[in-house]
Amino acid sequence: MSDQTQELELAPEAEDEAYKLNQKAVASILYAVEIDDAERLTELMEPLHAADIADLLEQISSFERTKLIRLYDREFDGEILSELDESIREEVIAVLAPQVLSDAVRDMDSDDVVDLVEDLEDAQAETILDALEDVDRAAVEQALAYPEYSAGRLMQREVVMAPEHWTVGQAIDFLRKTPEDDLPDQFYHIVLVDPRMHPVGNVTLGKLMRSKRATLLRDILEDTFQVIPATQPEGDVAYAFNQYHLISAPVVDDEGRLIGVITIDDAMTVLDEEHEEDILRLAGVGEGSLSDRVIETTKQRLPWLAVNLLTAIAASMVISQFEVAIAQIVALAVLMPIVASMGGNAGTQSLTVAVRAIATRDLTGSNVWRVIRRECLVGLVNGVIFAVIMGIVGVIWFGSPALGYVIAVAMVINMVVAGLAGTGIPIVLERVGVDPALASGAFVTTVTDVVGFFAFLGLAAAVLL
Amino acid sequence: MSDQTQELELAPEAEDEAYKLNQKAVASILYAVEIDDAERLTELMEPLHAADIADLLEQISSFERTKLIRLYDREFDGEILSELDESIREEVIAVLAPQVLSDAVRDMDSDDVVDLVEDLEDAQAETILDALEDVDRAAVEQALAYPEYSAGRLMQREVVMAPEHWTVGQAIDFLRKTPEDDLPDQFYHIVLVDPRMHPVGNVTLGKLMRSKRATLLRDILEDTFQVIPATQPEGDVAYAFNQYHLISAPVVDDEGRLIGVITIDDAMTVLDEEHEEDILRLAGVGEGSLSDRVIETTKQRLPWLAVNLLTAIAASMVISQFEVAIAQIVALAVLMPIVASMGGNAGTQSLTVAVRAIATRDLTGSNVWRVIRRECLVGLVNGVIFAVIMGIVGVIWFGSPALGYVIAVAMVINMVVAGLAGTGIPIVLERVGVDPALASGAFVTTVTDVVGFFAFLGLAAAVLL
Repeated sequence: MSDQTQELELAPEAEDEAYKLNQKAVASILYAVEIDDAERLTELMEPLHAADIADLLEQISSFERTKLIRLYDREFDGEILSELDESIREEVIAVLAPQVLSDAVRDMDSDDVVDLVEDLEDAQAETILDALEDVDRAAVEQALAYPEYSAGRLMQREVVMAPEHWTVGQAIDFLRKTPEDDLPDQFYHIVLVDPRMHPVGNVTLGKLMRSKRATLLRDILEDTFQVIPATQPEGDVAYAFNQYHLISAPVVDDEGRLIGVITIDDAMTVLDEEHEEDILRLAGVGEGSLSDRVIETTKQRLPWLAVNLLTAIAASMVISQFEVAIAQIVALAVLMPIVASMGGNAGTQSLTVAVRAIATRDLTGSNVWRVIRRECLVGLVNGVIFAVIMGIVGVIWFGSPALGYVIAVAMVINMVVAGLAGTGIPIVLERVGVDPALASGAFVTTVTDVVGFFAFLGLAAAVLL
Repeated sequence: MSDQTQELELAPEAEDEAYKLNQKAVASILYAVEIDDAERLTELMEPLHAADIADLLEQISSFERTKLIRLYDREFDGEILSELDESIREEVIAVLAPQVLSDAVRDMDSDDVVDLVEDLEDAQAETILDALEDVDRAAVEQALAYPEYSAGRLMQREVVMAPEHWTVGQAIDFLRKTPEDDLPDQFYHIVLVDPRMHPVGNVTLGKLMRSKRATLLRDILEDTFQVIPATQPEGDVAYAFNQYHLISAPVVDDEGRLIGVITIDDAMTVLDEEHEEDILRLAGVGEGSLSDRVIETTKQRLPWLAVNLLTAIAASMVISQFEVAIAQIVALAVLMPIVASMGGNAGTQSLTVAVRAIATRDLTGSNVWRVIRRECLVGLVNGVIFAVIMGIVGVIWFGSPALGYVIAVAMVINMVVAGLAGTGIPIVLERVGVDPALASGAFVTTVTDVVGFFAFLGLAAAVLL
């Protein structure tokens, strides 16, 4: 109890945002580190959850981090390692004393060790594998044999299972006599298997406890039951958990034999990571976290900026075709970014909705044409509204009805094209196997820039000169 | 078992993307609807999970939907209603026969009814509340008394609890003699409460089953235990589940008394919705789903386009200050969008990382200055790289070293400003209580457009004229 109370005081700031690390607590911890007070540091860190300690380590400077870890060394456990962001894991592992590292690793569940090892450099991965007992090492290496980001990597190998002909009483007796170490830390279901080890259903512990000892397990199976192939991408696994409200699901090999189980907390982590990835990709950031260094961040963002430069140069080349017109009517240069910008914005709206709908399997063959038509219509309606506004602005600003007419028509054209490109491009990219979140943005902006400048300047040249 | 096998054939397309509705199955269903074959329709729908039926209804046209529901009427259950997207729920409820609707609703858990009723118009909500039994209706109305998007709305009221002095044996006997209807459908923990009904810890069912009957429940509590206030926003609840790997957490009222429980599957749904909302807001789409009609979608997107128009006009006004320069050197009009576009892109990168870091509580007082400095440095390094490239392009394209020099310097300035604005603006918005995902984009683009055009054209006017 006292731990709990203390945690409430230290970790989340009740007045401010919930679950945000308390700034005062962080300051006290950093002060203890500065004055080398290991005892005080341990006292301050003790009530913190491993996930919060990891966040703390990510938020302080590299210098403070090294000092803190050296001082906190003996208390450092495996859970903190699992919670740490990839970008600083290697740094932290390099700082930890070898003995502390092996103790920490030996404490971890096999799926957490897999998650840790897969992102490390070979030398560090080897150190960690060496720290494991032979059985655990074999389990980790088997998991690593599955493709990255597959169900096989995500699953835990410890499964509570029972033959399909067992009764409730048999299952309870079996659970009671199995040594604690052979059971997973947390489990919510018993997986029923047939003689060939194919999973046939799940029994929840709640149902098991409440049923008579003579009841057959197969008579109290859960309604919803999904079997997951070990090679399935983890994104699909997360989708299945979210779609079918699964709590745990058995994982099977190529022959359909039970080899592990995935629980909802792991699926939730994956869902979170996939979303994060989609958001960052849509913004052209690739990967990246706050704890990355300047040089890494620069490298991650550079390719996207390079693509954007090509897009921008393409747009400039369109403009350069109309130098004569611009030289005669400078107002064209003033107004031309508006048409391109509105198209770019409308295109981004359409493309974001399309990319999300593809990710959530809501955009399929059944509704693709209806969706494209809808986006074009939305572009048309909004285009007409803003065309009228900009037409009026053009007339008032530059006193030229013809200029107002030109910008209005260009606006309508570009916004319809934006709806078409914003929906069509992600769909086509997905069909040819490219992640639409990654590449759609550059294509759509190129289209709306080129069409925007061309329609506006082209019409102007035709009408006004 | 036969259901399971059939489901595997019909629902996910093994060859194609997992869990995507099988196009052939959808076509057969729509054909059965077209020829009014209710029997065949029921046969085809039977193996589908409620979540998949909901997806199917979202993906077909409004006309097909109405016909399908009329034909499928008697089989329509509450779970399908819960899974349906808000945008078509009202339409579906209006089509359902009153008797079918009340049967469907009476089948649902109270938290699902809350979720359904809160988004409906008053008349429809009243119809549904009327269909409930008095006890259930009271429970739903109590939940609706909590603010929208709060833990109080999210929780289920059925909690399995035990006094803290109980033994394992007492808890098991209690569970066995409680009528099935008084227990939640799924539960994973028993919540221990003190005499004043304050929750003091969780016992997992797995641990309960494996412990001796005489063991005290308080001796087998879970390590991680988080209590959630009923008024806490659901986004914070989802964060806590994800951060602390919770499976279920007790919800308490203002006096800290246990009033309900939230389970991880609900938290996962919220996490998914919050992410979705962030992605759509970052793209200026507000809300919106594929099943919205043209007119609704147009309305949702219009405000963001209007904001963008103001931004674009502001940029145009900057350009109009330099009409004289542009009239003399038309190359300026050709090149000026490049500087603005690169700045806008770099700014979007910084702002997306900042918005996400704020959402995940990774950007705090401890590291805010380090992050801002890093983003500016990244902008500087990338700015210099692209300045050199664009300087060379400028010289080659227009044969003017001075023009190359001007575009290079403007590029560096704008990309540093992009890093500063992209990080600073979301931080400031969050401090003043505005959702940074919602508003940052418009501000950042305005800054990078204005600074981009001003730096490039201003320098050009000063140097080249």
